Amino acid sequence: MKPIIRSLLDTDFYKFTMGQVVFHHYPSVNVRYAFKNRTKGIALSQFINEDDLRMELDRIRSLKFNTSEIRYLRGADIGARRMFSHEYLYFLENQLQLPPYELKYDGDNFTLEVEGDWAHAIYWEIPMLATINELYYRGWMKSQSKFRKGKWWANGIVRLAGKLDALGALPVSLVDFGTRRRFSLDWHDCVVETLSDELTDKQFRGTSNAWLAMKYGLKPMGTSAHEMFMILAGVLDDGTDESVRASYRESMRLWYRFYGYELSIALTDTYGSLYHLETMARDEAQDWKGVRQDSGDPVWFGEKIIETYKRHRIDHRDKMIIFSDGLELPRIVELFRRFNGRIRTSFGWGTNLTNDLGFAPLSLVIKPVMANGRGLVKLSDNPAKAVGNPEDIERYRRIFNYREQEYAECKY
Amino acid sequence: MKPIIRSLLDTDFYKFTMGQVVFHHYPSVNVRYAFKNRTKGIALSQFINEDDLRMELDRIRSLKFNTSEIRYLRGADIGARRMFSHEYLYFLENQLQLPPYELKYDGDNFTLEVEGDWAHAIYWEIPMLATINELYYRGWMKSQSKFRKGKWWANGIVRLAGKLDALGALPVSLVDFGTRRRFSLDWHDCVVETLSDELTDKQFRGTSNAWLAMKYGLKPMGTSAHEMFMILAGVLDDGTDESVRASYRESMRLWYRFYGYELSIALTDTYGSLYHLETMARDEAQDWKGVRQDSGDPVWFGEKIIETYKRHRIDHRDKMIIFSDGLELPRIVELFRRFNGRIRTSFGWGTNLTNDLGFAPLSLVIKPVMANGRGLVKLSDNPAKAVGNPEDIERYRRIFNYREQEYAECKY
Repeated sequence: MKPIIRSLLDTDFYKFTMGQVVFHHYPSVNVRYAFKNRTKGIALSQFINEDDLRMELDRIRSLKFNTSEIRYLRGADIGARRMFSHEYLYFLENQLQLPPYELKYDGDNFTLEVEGDWAHAIYWEIPMLATINELYYRGWMKSQSKFRKGKWWANGIVRLAGKLDALGALPVSLVDFGTRRRFSLDWHDCVVETLSDELTDKQFRGTSNAWLAMKYGLKPMGTSAHEMFMILAGVLDDGTDESVRASYRESMRLWYRFYGYELSIALTDTYGSLYHLETMARDEAQDWKGVRQDSGDPVWFGEKIIETYKRHRIDHRDKMIIFSDGLELPRIVELFRRFNGRIRTSFGWGTNLTNDLGFAPLSLVIKPVMANGRGLVKLSDNPAKAVGNPEDIERYRRIFNYREQEYAECKY
Repeated sequence: MKPIIRSLLDTDFYKFTMGQVVFHHYPSVNVRYAFKNRTKGIALSQFINEDDLRMELDRIRSLKFNTSEIRYLRGADIGARRMFSHEYLYFLENQLQLPPYELKYDGDNFTLEVEGDWAHAIYWEIPMLATINELYYRGWMKSQSKFRKGKWWANGIVRLAGKLDALGALPVSLVDFGTRRRFSLDWHDCVVETLSDELTDKQFRGTSNAWLAMKYGLKPMGTSAHEMFMILAGVLDDGTDESVRASYRESMRLWYRFYGYELSIALTDTYGSLYHLETMARDEAQDWKGVRQDSGDPVWFGEKIIETYKRHRIDHRDKMIIFSDGLELPRIVELFRRFNGRIRTSFGWGTNLTNDLGFAPLSLVIKPVMANGRGLVKLSDNPAKAVGNPEDIERYRRIFNYREQEYAECKY
């Protein structure tokens, strides 16, 4: 069988935008990432054979960028200058080596962790998740008859057509964010090609998948992820609350210095969006293009950010929200209708776009858990989703003035 | 049926390196190109339906570069700087429009000409030739049974395998130059993928086809063609012999100013290689990486160029010849054996690489025939192949001191 991951570009573009910052500023931070299966009642090890998983992961470790892939990245511009430095592209082409993985099968599930220099380890998350997903569905499909296998695919087509019918007439702006949780590469490819053929350029703005963007002449989309904030907090933490708080704005400054307005979409929820919005200076609100909403209640968040812009007397109609948390069709339509004309909206559509064939998708994540020996924390706008050791979570909640009650009650 | 040409990158890379020089310096020179069928006894119009040809050519005129293709070109470097300027890439992406073609069916053959601004018209040659070839073979294949059709493909595979067997062990350096005369896009694609899989990177250096280079992560190869010299001669000709002679070195200077050492492969035979070699200054011999041999006797030429380097006391072992004239396997082996160790060799393999399925390939060309109203001339190292009006040929022979007899007698 063909390898599941065939190119190091088959990943989210933001791994490169972040990867470059890491390469230039924090290459040798020691980071540990851990895989977690958040799906209730699914025994992964019954569907995924250990040897198969090891083979696919080993194959990923043996991949190299080819000349065209490097030229493609080199051709990315920000304004009139290159997005990626010569040194960073040289690193990708000649030096990148994904660190070893630690895989242990244990009853119904397995643990999977990776530890290494951040500059190298950062590239594991997306191909690893996509691999586990695809192996799981391959395993699951074995129980299905030939006809049933075809039926699931047909189901996917019909559901995709339903999405297109519903969205075709709306001036909505969509981006594919579905690499990590896709049903399979082939299905993902089919979805991206279909959106590209059936929607206008204004409706389908591009894909976060750098490989498919290259293949279909689309714009590769992406800025940054929680790991930037989380790992920088771990690295800059000198034991004081102030150093952790300072790391937050340091991440923002560093990012803006690299990519300026073009990639200035702030992810606000790492330690709760209330903290982000309440401490956002007017300059920052002015300079940054917009924000990404990735947890909690999107309507509550949208109203909050508009209020924040108003407070700074900034025209919110020029700003943008990218919604990217567990989107489904009715939610997209609702958010679009509510915010259209008040603030620019864009929808980063993940699992439900690339893994909607009629059965429940898995919910798998890989998170950084440790940096230079310190435990890492993500709080998010959903108190139930906090990640980290209990005592670290407690400390971060205090540092960032995390008001659990407000998030719990914020449902519109 | 799928379009024959699906991308404006499906052309020789040198159209872009030349195209940029033209765009910056001679964009609005009015150029006329004419198609010519040099194949004896082939009635093209019996195999190629006029409507089909018009449909394919109209499709080519409607093509646009996509984002990935532009990024790919933008990612091409020379040393630490970009090969293609921002302005040129903007032109390709937003302004390029292939001029109309003039097609007239006339008995067994047809005439096909194109006239327009050089900056636009330069991109017609390769896709036009590839289209006529592929339509011809599609037409011809209609007379073949299903089994026979498969047999021709099998023949191609067997012949390609024979080439690989013969060359696999030799440290020879090959480049695919076969876009314009390929049997079909699919076959060309298969040949390039096979060479890329079966030979080492040192043996198969890349392809002149920018699209396949991008697809397979190969180096896109190419420098310049006769049209640079021919059209510049037409443009700079003020009626004096001296102005035509001066245009020749002006082409060389202009080229070196754009691309420096990296693309400094001189095509020597536009007005006869004897002129080129005898008037080549020591600096030029020193600075330029090497030469391309495209007509006449390659052994004679190879010995001549080595002599020339010796005369200038330049170490010929550091220089390079790219042989590109009608290469076949035994000739490649002979030239490699003769020159290996004395001068670096590389082989730009065209028709016999991408159209060797067991029947005679067509010999089709498209040449510039007029620039700003002046007739153009190419003499080459083969007196029988001179192109132009007889009186213009006569004049150019005088201007460039073309010694017909020496070329006619130069067979080794």
